[in-house]
Amino acid sequence: MSGSVRFSGVQVGDSIPELVLPPIERLQLALFAGASGDHNPIHVDEDKARGGGLPGVIAHGMLNMAVLGRLLTNWVPQRALRGFGARFSAMAFPGDVVTCRGQITNKTEAAGEKLVELALTAENQKGDKLLVGTATVALPE
Amino acid sequence: MSGSVRFSGVQVGDSIPELVLPPIERLQLALFAGASGDHNPIHVDEDKARGGGLPGVIAHGMLNMAVLGRLLTNWVPQRALRGFGARFSAMAFPGDVVTCRGQITNKTEAAGEKLVELALTAENQKGDKLLVGTATVALPE
Repeated sequence: MSGSVRFSGVQVGDSIPELVLPPIERLQLALFAGASGDHNPIHVDEDKARGGGLPGVIAHGMLNMAVLGRLLTNWVPQRALRGFGARFSAMAFPGDVVTCRGQITNKTEAAGEKLVELALTAENQKGDKLLVGTATVALPE
Repeated sequence: MSGSVRFSGVQVGDSIPELVLPPIERLQLALFAGASGDHNPIHVDEDKARGGGLPGVIAHGMLNMAVLGRLLTNWVPQRALRGFGARFSAMAFPGDVVTCRGQITNKTEAAGEKLVELALTAENQKGDKLLVGTATVALPE
């Protein structure tokens, strides 16, 4: 979070700094369960995940989304965030290395704010897209 | 997560079961920082949050979003989730009691899937909307 990104300083087509996460850890899934209150055992219990037809525990979809959100809050302060959404297209597993990328697709104004729109992706080490998203961020002039 | 919700059993206008969260705790923000890797001190350090012009520590926007996502994963399995997005309109603080609600706004089909679209809100105990969102969920026939 630098707070130094300005509307006049970014152009459509610009990429924002990418974010390569450390490998997903089971401990991280347990922390996320505690933080979010989502205690579905498919995220923390290997036996129950396999019993449910999964190859093993999977990351919470909302954790993947939170990680993609960090791409944004590493770039601008959280208060700049106006909207954020994503399509879920693959699951993430312990050991997966997720890379998040964003590119500016539009510059616009609404309600007196200078806004940029971004296209976002979160993909694993095999290039499978976990999430394909969009965001809207307000920037100082 | 029941897995028992069917496309034929829901109608436009139906509300899904609401989710009233326990009061936000500072411990929860610390757990979320660990899970997401977002270690911005405005979420865990009162002095630094006030130094940044905030009244105190605030919940991560992505935590609010994760909580709103639980409304969905309490209703259908995570694998049913196709898309999820929200606008950020207010901050959440320790002690806030967040209520999440969802209502079905459309039933449609795409790529051979039966889909329902929902309008979502997360609001605090004063009725301030933290998030206004939408989601798309695939359901069995």
